[in-house]
Amino acid sequence: MRQNLILLIHCPDREGLVAAVTSLIRKVGGNIVDLDQHVDAERGVFFMRVEWTPPGDPDVTARFEKAFSDAVAAPYEMHWRLEQADRRLRMALFVSKYSHCLYDVLSRWQSGEWAVEIPVIISNHPDLEHVARAFGVRFEHIPVTRETKAAAERRQLALLREERIDLVVLARYMQILSADFIASMPERIINIHHSFLPAFAGGQPYHAAFTRGVKIIGATSHYVTADLDAGPIIAQDVVAVSHKDSVDDMVRKGRDLEKIVLARAVYAHLQHQILVYDNRTVVFE
Amino acid sequence: MRQNLILLIHCPDREGLVAAVTSLIRKVGGNIVDLDQHVDAERGVFFMRVEWTPPGDPDVTARFEKAFSDAVAAPYEMHWRLEQADRRLRMALFVSKYSHCLYDVLSRWQSGEWAVEIPVIISNHPDLEHVARAFGVRFEHIPVTRETKAAAERRQLALLREERIDLVVLARYMQILSADFIASMPERIINIHHSFLPAFAGGQPYHAAFTRGVKIIGATSHYVTADLDAGPIIAQDVVAVSHKDSVDDMVRKGRDLEKIVLARAVYAHLQHQILVYDNRTVVFE
Amino acid sequence: MRQNLILLIHCPDREGLVAAVTSLIRKVGGNIVDLDQHVDAERGVFFMRVEWTPPGDPDVTARFEKAFSDAVAAPYEMHWRLEQADRRLRMALFVSKYSHCLYDVLSRWQSGEWAVEIPVIISNHPDLEHVARAFGVRFEHIPVTRETKAAAERRQLALLREERIDLVVLARYMQILSADFIASMPERIINIHHSFLPAFAGGQPYHAAFTRGVKIIGATSHYVTADLDAGPIIAQDVVAVSHKDSVDDMVRKGRDLEKIVLARAVYAHLQHQILVYDNRTVVFE
Amino acid sequence: MRQNLILLIHCPDREGLVAAVTSLIRKVGGNIVDLDQHVDAERGVFFMRVEWTPPGDPDVTARFEKAFSDAVAAPYEMHWRLEQADRRLRMALFVSKYSHCLYDVLSRWQSGEWAVEIPVIISNHPDLEHVARAFGVRFEHIPVTRETKAAAERRQLALLREERIDLVVLARYMQILSADFIASMPERIINIHHSFLPAFAGGQPYHAAFTRGVKIIGATSHYVTADLDAGPIIAQDVVAVSHKDSVDDMVRKGRDLEKIVLARAVYAHLQHQILVYDNRTVVFE
Repeated sequence: MRQNLILLIHCPDREGLVAAVTSLIRKVGGNIVDLDQHVDAERGVFFMRVEWTPPGDPDVTARFEKAFSDAVAAPYEMHWRLEQADRRLRMALFVSKYSHCLYDVLSRWQSGEWAVEIPVIISNHPDLEHVARAFGVRFEHIPVTRETKAAAERRQLALLREERIDLVVLARYMQILSADFIASMPERIINIHHSFLPAFAGGQPYHAAFTRGVKIIGATSHYVTADLDAGPIIAQDVVAVSHKDSVDDMVRKGRDLEKIVLARAVYAHLQHQILVYDNRTVVFE
Repeated sequence: MRQNLILLIHCPDREGLVAAVTSLIRKVGGNIVDLDQHVDAERGVFFMRVEWTPPGDPDVTARFEKAFSDAVAAPYEMHWRLEQADRRLRMALFVSKYSHCLYDVLSRWQSGEWAVEIPVIISNHPDLEHVARAFGVRFEHIPVTRETKAAAERRQLALLREERIDLVVLARYMQILSADFIASMPERIINIHHSFLPAFAGGQPYHAAFTRGVKIIGATSHYVTADLDAGPIIAQDVVAVSHKDSVDDMVRKGRDLEKIVLARAVYAHLQHQILVYDNRTVVFE
Repeated sequence: MRQNLILLIHCPDREGLVAAVTSLIRKVGGNIVDLDQHVDAERGVFFMRVEWTPPGDPDVTARFEKAFSDAVAAPYEMHWRLEQADRRLRMALFVSKYSHCLYDVLSRWQSGEWAVEIPVIISNHPDLEHVARAFGVRFEHIPVTRETKAAAERRQLALLREERIDLVVLARYMQILSADFIASMPERIINIHHSFLPAFAGGQPYHAAFTRGVKIIGATSHYVTADLDAGPIIAQDVVAVSHKDSVDDMVRKGRDLEKIVLARAVYAHLQHQILVYDNRTVVFE
Repeated sequence: MRQNLILLIHCPDREGLVAAVTSLIRKVGGNIVDLDQHVDAERGVFFMRVEWTPPGDPDVTARFEKAFSDAVAAPYEMHWRLEQADRRLRMALFVSKYSHCLYDVLSRWQSGEWAVEIPVIISNHPDLEHVARAFGVRFEHIPVTRETKAAAERRQLALLREERIDLVVLARYMQILSADFIASMPERIINIHHSFLPAFAGGQPYHAAFTRGVKIIGATSHYVTADLDAGPIIAQDVVAVSHKDSVDDMVRKGRDLEKIVLARAVYAHLQHQILVYDNRTVVFE
C-alpha cells in the first residue's frame, strides 16, 4: 500500500492557484483523493488541503517537494507543508487532578480509535498516576511552583525531546505555560478550556456562567499561544442549562463537553486538517 | 369556561412552603393544573409557579388574594403575583431598519400563534412603515438624535400609556434606552442581542465573532436593565459556523437565530413562565 | 460587474479530474473564486462545484460550454450544468392552511434576504389569500379533490409554465402530487416534512412522536420524488422535547423548525449548492 | 447527615394530590428539598417526584411508608416507591467487542463521578477482558450461541443475583435478551441504540443512515422491553453529518454520541429521576 500524502498550503490569493497545484501533482503521477480549498475574500488569502496518492516511485516525495518548491511555492509565495497520512504522531498529555479528559484520550488510544503514540503523561500532581499505570503509560510527576516553574519547564521540554513528541495535549492541565515553552511548540499545543470562549476566559468559568445566568454553557479547544485563552479556536460545542442547574451540575455537564470537544480538536490535528492564519483556524473536514 | 390563574412566587426558602400554598388553593376550591417549583440552594431562595383552575365563584380571585396575602405571603415574606392565563397582553414593538424579527413577530400574531395584542410599532426610522401597513398595525416614526432623545422617549412613553402596553419588545431596535425609560417598565422590556452573551456585548458582534474565529455563534434574549446587554437572560441559542462563513454569512445565519430566540423569550413571558431574581431568570417550562 | 458562473459536475471518479476542469477554466481566462469537490469513495463517484469569474468577453459562456463539452465532459462521462450566479430564480409557493412557512418565505423575499422572484402562490384552500394580498403576490385557489386532482394539476402546471417557474416550494402543502407532476419538475420541487425522516413519515408525525415518547423532534426538507417522503434530503434539524411537551407543544416547537429547515434548503438550492445522486444530496456550503 | 428520601408517584389525576402528599411529608416532620410534578392531560395521569429530608427519627421511613400507604396512596390509587438518595446502586455491564461505552462508564465510576458499584462485567466475547482487568472489575465471559442461549442467560441471571445487581447496562452488547430475562429486571435494563429511534431500528443503523442520506445521526438510550428497540426512551442526542461523512465517519461520530447519551440515561436512573408509564418516560431533571 502506498501511503497518501497531504499537502497544506496558504498564500496570497491569485488566479490559477488550484490549476497550478493540481497540475503538478498530476505531472509527478499522483492521484488526488480529496481536495479542499478556501479563500478568505476579505483578507485575500488562499488555503488548500490536498490528499493524494503518489506513484510507486520511492523518491517521489523528494522529487515532488523539489519541483513544487521551485515551480509553484516560490512564485506564489506559499507557506506549505507535506504530511504523510499514516505516520503515527507522538502525543504527550499534561494533566493535573481532573481525570475525565485523560481517561477519554487514553481510551481512544488504547482501543485503536486513534492511530497515535502516547509515550508520556506529565503532571504537576501525583494524583492520576494510577490511571497512567492502568493504561501502561509512563507518568512523570513534575511539581510546579512559582519558584520552580522555569526548572520544571526545562524538565518538561527535555521529556518532550527525549520522547520525540509531535503534539502536546493539555487535558485540563491547571498551569499556565511560559511564552518560551509555547514558542518551542508552535501550533502543536492543544488546550481545552471549560467555557464557550471568549465568554468566561480565565479561571472558574462555570461559577461565572452560573452568576451571569446563561442558558447555554460551552467548551473550547484551541492552540495555545502566549495570550491566555486567546489562541486559535479549533472546536467548540455547547449544552443547554437552566435555572435548575447548580454550579455542580454545570461542572458535570461541562465535563462531557470538554472531553468531546478536546477529542474533536485532537482528531482534526491528527488528520492534518488544520491551517492557522491570523489567529484563526481553517479546519478542513 | 373558567379562566386559569397563575400564581408566581419567590421568597426565602423555608420548610412547609409547598404545603402552605397548595393547601390554600385547595381550601378556596381550586384545582392545581401545573406546579413547578425550584430552590436555589446556594442563595436559599424558593421559586414557584402554580397554574390552577378556580371554582365558579366570581369573587374567587379577590377572596384568594386576601387569604393568600394574610395567611401565606406575609408570614413567608413572599414576592408574588397572580396572573390570568387567558388575558391577552398588549405588546409594543420597537424597530429600526432590520425587518426579520419584525416580520416574525407580526406573523405569529396575525396567524393566531400568539394570543397577544400589538397596537403599535415604534421606530426611529421610517423604513419599515410598509411592513406595519401590510399587517395593519399603527406605525409611529419617532426619530432619535442625541439632542432629541429625552423628548423622543417622552413621546414613546406617552404612546405606551395611551395604548396600555404591558410589554415592550425591542426587535433589533438600534437605540439605547435611558435608565429612566427602563425603570418605568421593569422586567417588561425584552431585547434580542445578536451574540451569545456575555461574549461580544455591544455593537458589531458578528464582526467580533469572525475576528475571534469562533466555531459557534449565538443570540441572546434578555430583559433590558440599565446595564447594557447585561440584563437577565431569558433564552439563548447557537448555530455552528466554520472558516467558510464570512461576516455576511454569520449575519445571515444569525438572523434566523435572532428571530427564533426572541420568539422563545416573548412566548415564555406571555405564558407567565418567568421569575427574575438576582439578575437571573427562572423560566418554568 | 461580470457575473460569476457556477459549474456543477458529477461523473465516475478518475485521475486528473480536478486538473482537467481547472485547467480549462484557466485557459478561457476564468478565475476560480470557490472550488468544492467530493468523492464518494464507496460508489466511485466524483462531485464538484466551481464558482468562477469569466473574462469580459461576451461570448465566454458559449465558448466555454463548447470547449468543456468536447475536451472534458465527454471523455470523463460527466453530468454537468453551468449556472449564472446572479440570475434570480422564479419560485412558486404551494400552501394549504398553515401559514408559518408561507410568512417566513415571503418575508425573506420581500426584505431582500433572498434574491428570488415569487410570481405566484397556489393553494387548495382560500384561507391564506389575505397573506398573499398583504405581500402583493398573485394567489390562485385551485381546489383538489380525488375527482378533480388531474384537472387541478393541469391548471397548476399551466400556471408554472405561464410564470416560467424554476422552483416549486411546498410550504406545508397538504396534498400529494402525482408522479407525472413530479416528473415534470425533477429536483425542482422542495418539500418540508414535519418530522426527522425517515422517522414518522406520512401523516400526523407529531402525534406519532408523542406516542413513541421521543426526546427530540425534527423537520426535514427534501426534493420531492414519486416515493412519498423518501426523496433526497437537503436539510434537517431538531429540537429537544420532554415529557412536559404535549402534542400541541410539539406542533408549536416544530413550526419554528419547519420554517428554518425549509429556508436552509431553499437557500442552498438558490445558491446552486446541491447535487443529487443515488437519492442522496451533496450540499456544498 | 440525614439521608434524603425520594418519593416517586404516578396515579390517576385528581384534585388535591399535591396538597395531600406535601401535607403528609410536612406532618412527619420532613422538609421538601425538590418537588417536580407533571400531569399528562391527554391521558389524565399525574406524576410526581419529591426529594425530602426526613427528621432525625430512625423509624421515620417505616412510619412514613405506613401513613402514606394508608392515608394517601390507597385512596388516590397511586403507584409509588420510596428511594434513598445516597444508596449506591449495584450495576452490571454487558459488553461484546466495542469498548467505547465500557471505557466511558468505567471511567465515570472509577473517578468517583458516579456513586455506583460495578461488581461485574459480562461479555459474550473475551476481547475486553483486558479493560475489565485494568479497572479491577470482575469479568465473566459467557459465550452465547443459538443453542446455548438459554443456559447462558441462566448463568447471567445467577451472576446478577449473586452480585445483588440493581441495574443492567447494555454497553453495546450485541445480543438480544429473551423476554424472560427482560421480565426479571423490569425497567432495570438500559440499552444504548446507535440511531435516532424509531429511525433505523435493528442492525446496521449507520449503513442505513448513510444510504438514506440523512443530515443528522443520533443515539438513543432506553429501557429494554421484549419489543426490540421499542422500549421507553430515556435520552437521545444527535450530531450533524454531511455528504462528506462515510459510514466509517458516522461510526466514529456516533461513538461519541453513544457514550454521552448512555451516560445521561444511566445518570438519570441513578438519581431516581425516571418514571415509566405507557411505554414513555417522565424524566424529572
